[in-house]
Parts: sequence; C-alpha cells; structure tokens
Amino acid sequence: MKVKDLGEHALLARLLARLPRPPATVLVGPGDDAAIVTHVRNQHLVVTTDSLVEEIHFSRRYFAPADIGHKALAVNLSDMAAMGASPRWALLSLVLPGSWPVSDVEGLMDGLAELARLHGTSVVGGNITRTNGPLVVDVTLGGDVRPRRWLTRGGARPGDSIYVSGTLGGARAGLEMLSGTGNPSTALGAGREPGAGSRDLVCETRQRRPEPRVRLGRAMAGARAARAAMDLSDGLADALRQVAAASGCGVRIDAATLPIEPGAARWWQARGGDPVRSAVVGGEDYELLFAVPTRGAGKLRNARRHVADPPITKIGVFTKDPGELVLDRSGELEPLPMGYEHFREPGTGSSEPS
Amino acid sequence: MKVKDLGEHALLARLLARLPRPPATVLVGPGDDAAIVTHVRNQHLVVTTDSLVEEIHFSRRYFAPADIGHKALAVNLSDMAAMGASPRWALLSLVLPGSWPVSDVEGLMDGLAELARLHGTSVVGGNITRTNGPLVVDVTLGGDVRPRRWLTRGGARPGDSIYVSGTLGGARAGLEMLSGTGNPSTALGAGREPGAGSRDLVCETRQRRPEPRVRLGRAMAGARAARAAMDLSDGLADALRQVAAASGCGVRIDAATLPIEPGAARWWQARGGDPVRSAVVGGEDYELLFAVPTRGAGKLRNARRHVADPPITKIGVFTKDPGELVLDRSGELEPLPMGYEHFREPGTGSSEPS
Repeated sequence: MKVKDLGEHALLARLLARLPRPPATVLVGPGDDAAIVTHVRNQHLVVTTDSLVEEIHFSRRYFAPADIGHKALAVNLSDMAAMGASPRWALLSLVLPGSWPVSDVEGLMDGLAELARLHGTSVVGGNITRTNGPLVVDVTLGGDVRPRRWLTRGGARPGDSIYVSGTLGGARAGLEMLSGTGNPSTALGAGREPGAGSRDLVCETRQRRPEPRVRLGRAMAGARAARAAMDLSDGLADALRQVAAASGCGVRIDAATLPIEPGAARWWQARGGDPVRSAVVGGEDYELLFAVPTRGAGKLRNARRHVADPPITKIGVFTKDPGELVLDRSGELEPLPMGYEHFREPGTGSSEPS
Repeated sequence: MKVKDLGEHALLARLLARLPRPPATVLVGPGDDAAIVTHVRNQHLVVTTDSLVEEIHFSRRYFAPADIGHKALAVNLSDMAAMGASPRWALLSLVLPGSWPVSDVEGLMDGLAELARLHGTSVVGGNITRTNGPLVVDVTLGGDVRPRRWLTRGGARPGDSIYVSGTLGGARAGLEMLSGTGNPSTALGAGREPGAGSRDLVCETRQRRPEPRVRLGRAMAGARAARAAMDLSDGLADALRQVAAASGCGVRIDAATLPIEPGAARWWQARGGDPVRSAVVGGEDYELLFAVPTRGAGKLRNARRHVADPPITKIGVFTKDPGELVLDRSGELEPLPMGYEHFREPGTGSSEPS
C-alpha cells in the first residue's frame, strides 16, 4: 500500500502505534495540536533542528528506510552532544511523496524510534505532509543542560589543545563506497576482490548509521573538561573554522596525529588520493571536537573515567592569530582546506545539515 | 543573487542579521549547534511542529515570500493557541531550492520575524538545507502553559456547547479567488467587475496571512471556560470529527448559526455552490473550536472580558452517541461532511498540515 492510498490520519495512527508509551514527564503525547512536557528542575532547555533531504543527504539506492530514520535523529543527537546536553524529546516532521510504500514509512519510524530508545528520548509529536518532490525528514530535538555546564563553539582560547573523538573520514569513504562516487569501478555490485582498498563495512555503517557521541559530550561538559565543542557534521575543516571564528583564535593541526579511519585510509590510498585531505574535509562522521585547556588534564581524566569510549585524540592547538588556519604535514605548513558548503557543492551527496 | 551562489554560512549570517536580538531568557541563540532557553518557573513546556510545502500549501504565483514566512509561523502559533499556551521560541528549518533569489529568502524571513515579534516569540535557531525539489518551510514552536490549564481535543462531554471563533470559509474562498480554482474565469488577472461574487480582499488575506488566535486560546484556557479545543487547520468538519473521536462524543451542528465569512458566501452563491458545505469542509481558517460546558457561562464571560476579539459563536452541541455526526439544516439532518486529508485530495492546494 502506498502513502497516497492511506490518508494522513490513518498513516499517523499506524506510525504512532509503533512508538513506545512515553514516560510520565510527557503530559500530552502525539496526537493533539501540540505536546506538553514537564520541565526538569534547575536545568535549561536545549533545542535544535536538522533535516535530511532525499538525494542531498541520502539516496534510497543505498539507504534502507530504517537508516534514514536513524540518521535523521542521529544528526540532531550529535548537535545535543556538542552542547554537552541530555536529549529528552523529539518532534518528527515528515514531508512524504505519495508514492512511498507505507511499509517503508514504518521502517523509517522504526529506525528513528530504536535510536530514540537508546538515548532515552521520546517522540512526543510530529507532522506528516504530502510533497510532489523528494522526501524530507525534519527532526527537532529537545533536551536539558545544567546551568553553566554547556559547551558552545565560542569558548576556545589560545593554547587550548584540540581533541577529536573517534576516527575521521569513515563516513565520507563509506559514501564513496556505497554510491560509487569515489571511483566508477567500485560502484555497488561491481564486485571487487576483498583486500586493500575494497569496500569496508565499518565505513559504510558510519555513513548510514552514525553514532552520536551523547555520553561523551555530556561527560566533557559535566566535568568542565572542555571550554568549547562542536560536532563534525560538515567535516573537521569546517568545524575548526567555525570554532576558531567563534572563539577568535587560530588553529594549528598536526596531520600525523589525525585518527583517520583505517578502512578509509586504505580506500583513498588505493585510488591515489590523499587520505589526510579527504579525512579533514569529509563530513558526516558526527564525532566531537573539543577545546581542552592545558591545565585541565585532571578534569579530562575525570570525564574519561565515566566515558572511555570512543577514544579521543589530541590533533593540534588553538593559537593566538585568528587568521592562522594551518595543517602541519611533517613540518610543511599548508592552509587548512575549506569545509563543505551545501549550496556550493551540488550533487555530491556529501553535504550535511549544520 | 541566487541561494546557490552564496553558500550556506553566508546565507545563514544574512538571515540571522535580520532577527531582533533575543531576550535574556535565550542563553544561546542562533549560530551554535543548538539553542539554550531558560525554563519558565511552574510552567510546562509545549512544543509543536508544522511544515509548508510549495505547491501543496502555497504557490509562489499568489504568495509573496513574506506571506510564506508569515503563514509558516502562523500555523504553528495556531496549534499553540489551541492548547491554551503562550508561544516563546521558534526554530526555523528551511529546505531551499538553489534557484531561489536571496532577496526572496530574506523576504520570507522578514514575514516570519514580524509575526514572531507580534507574539513575543524569538527565533532561537534553525537550519538551511539544499533541495532539488520544492521549498519546504518547517517551523517548530515552543511555549509555556500553566499546570492543569491546557486544552486538548479529548475533554469535551455530552451537552457541552460547541463554539467557533471568527468566521468560516474565508481562507478556502480566498484560495479559490487567488488560484482561480473555484472557476476558471476568475483566475488572477482575469478582471471581473466588482460586486456580488467578485474577489474579496478579506478572503484572500485570510488565505495568505492567517491570524492565529493565541490570546483567545490562552484566555479560554486560563479562565477554564472551555473543556476542549482544537484549531481549524483542516476545516471545521475535520476538527469536529477529531474532537468528537478524542472525547468519545457525537456532534450536532446547526447550519443556520455558522458564521460564514460574507465574502466567501457571496463567492460560492454566485457560482451556484453550497456555502454551508464549502465553509464546513474548507480548511486554513485557523480559527479555534471550543467545547464549553453549559454551566460555564460565567467563566466564558470572564475569558471574553479580556479578549473580546474575534467574536465567538455557538454552532451546536456535543452529544452522547459517538456515531452521531450531524449537520442540521433547518430541521433536515445531514451527515457531517468529511474533512480534508492530505494524501487523498492531491493537487487542490487546500490541504493543510495537522
């Protein structure tokens, strides 16, 4: 059955039936004009919104419906993580082509609901709209943060160490593997032999099912281990530029220390590419960038005691000169590459909501 | 200049510059990974989301950019009004075709910001995404409501009077006037003589610039003058069915009492239509429907003392039998017409986000 055969009310009812019962803090859940949620005492409200658009952020050729639902929530959870906040509730706005099978919409909802459950987040409401164009999944996420324990992009100071969580480049390499954009001969189903430079399940999973670093962000903010944070939705280069600009600092990155995802490095090496550059520019890893004060080693250990995974790696320092945006490659200094921009790189599929 | 020539960061910066400085309750405003807002003591959080999609909810042929921005916020303010809540903050998610002129995006933002200002609402964040398809404007609205002073769809009881605010049918007739769908000869620019059945500025304005009934909803909930409420986004017939179903009641409507917008009635009469049926089915008036207990006349007067405009009109009663959905036309009983459904009435442009 297609979406257009069912009608909006019936479709909404089917989707809502797939959600777990919301907790007692949700006073009015899905199905009314709005949702009502109790405040958490002595915490501030944190809100963010992000959309995924078909053929811009994903393609149904290599994203299952549940992947789309997962990722639409994950990109918002990553923003929450970057503030050091705890997610609580979500609103889902679906802009649906009438030709979509109802079972695919249910699959999308299941992917979103599963990740929501993992992060203690309730889907409290939403909206379904028809479109003659591509699918748009817009999620708004609400959460809490303790007073004076949040992280913005603007708090870094010269001398602070730059840390990133996890590995870099996996999601971009994964997209190239899935879509065949890295090299035509490697398109889906082209059947390469396994080994160096072949498709890599870790990279593909990082593209389709990013794991937002919610616990890490909260631990770093709660322990006051970081002064600034941002997520790597549009890539490391973009994040460094944004944090540097908001903080009035420069950055100097040591290329040798970058934790490039091994499967991604092999993929680019096998194609004669530059793994460092690809990993620095490539977006969608949804790792976190932190500014850590040099004297904050004790606080950093405290934060890591609670959340040891993913690893975090020091990749450089914030510097005094706001114009200095430098990548140090074994002593040779290069300007830091530009990041992705939605409207300027049409058709790559790699741009990402901010 | 087109959106695609500018880049996302520069476009965001230009749009944010058009917003007024947020109040002190907004601790982190637009431009970071998320926004942070303080809670209002002893109030609950109310959240809702709604999208407008180009060629589904509006057409650029007869909506100026500022109309689109106004309406995208208005439909959400109307949901807030239907809960009896006070709006506080909004998140704007724009899914933009690259071919849009930047000046039009600025116009859209101005229309939204002006209505936000009127309702004491701050745009605290948002997101811009590229699309190869139609424009989508998704707004999430947050607000506050006092404990036990909110209105849902589910509180009506048999015997309660049914009231609606303002007039009915204006927005639907306005759409027909603007788009020429009511009658080909009346399309924009076709130049009819003024008089009975001609285009009507009130109706066209109700279509393009609906006025959400925020003060009325808050006054009715605050005075406990109503037991249930819903807004007429998808029309009176749809709202009656929804409130009746959620409350386990039937409804009996007296057609003679319906406050049909005069210009709309003339429009449909001149075309041999049935103004009652058109006004009952037609959506987008964004008036409010209330269930008012018979013994609540004093509370109703209290609520009206504070908010006298728009007028409210008794149009029927809730009844015991949940299967009874009846329109009484001078003693002749008809079944209440069905409401709009997005996926079932393609191409009319009259369907509306719920």
